[in-house]
Amino acid sequence: MSHIPGQADQRSAADVYSARCPSRAALALIADKWAVLVAGCLVDGPKRHSWLRHQIGGISGKMLTRTLRELERAGLVERRIFPEVPPRVEYSLSPLGASLREPVAALTEWAKANGSLVVEARTRNGRPVERAG
Amino acid sequence: MSHIPGQADQRSAADVYSARCPSRAALALIADKWAVLVAGCLVDGPKRHSWLRHQIGGISGKMLTRTLRELERAGLVERRIFPEVPPRVEYSLSPLGASLREPVAALTEWAKANGSLVVEARTRNGRPVERAG
Repeated sequence: MSHIPGQADQRSAADVYSARCPSRAALALIADKWAVLVAGCLVDGPKRHSWLRHQIGGISGKMLTRTLRELERAGLVERRIFPEVPPRVEYSLSPLGASLREPVAALTEWAKANGSLVVEARTRNGRPVERAG
Repeated sequence: MSHIPGQADQRSAADVYSARCPSRAALALIADKWAVLVAGCLVDGPKRHSWLRHQIGGISGKMLTRTLRELERAGLVERRIFPEVPPRVEYSLSPLGASLREPVAALTEWAKANGSLVVEARTRNGRPVERAG
């Protein structure tokens, strides 16, 4: 098979350190606590907005809606409307979104294993750095 | 060994879905594109601020400083000053920070493998959702 520049393997050619690479946009999308938590819920199957909002402590309805829309727009989440009265809406991972299982699990497992140590270190080291958002 | 409530295994007791759990704070810290990119550089060894700024496309000096300070405060990054003229400062992962290797790799590999598909889906689906930051 001949190698044509531009048709090279996307994975090896991609560079998250380049601000203009599509992989950077994908990283920015999923390197977000709300996106990780929403995707983590949907790994288990389709969910409704109200279920997600109840499950994900601290998320506002507006932020949940925004996060779902961004994931939907990126082709990672599918929105399905059931013609009931009132209409029922369910969100699920798309086939592409199913690939999030591994990175989401790696992040949440790391956080669960190291959360106490991180918070202890912060307590030792004094006041928080202020950060937007 | 007897089991005392409160001394249970941190990992199984931790719940990233609870807004007050230390694991949520740890998730919020690392589920951030700049934190992932900085940690991804430091996985390869100690680095200087100027090197990181050059390597990480699109990061401002201010955001790099803030990200390094947050990681340092959380006990994940160590800052070492070499008594030269002018003093040289290097950042490296702490022993705790070394545990970031796996989740950082999982996120960046996912982004590299799926970046093009995500950007294609966004193009199909129209204009971006506005998001703070």
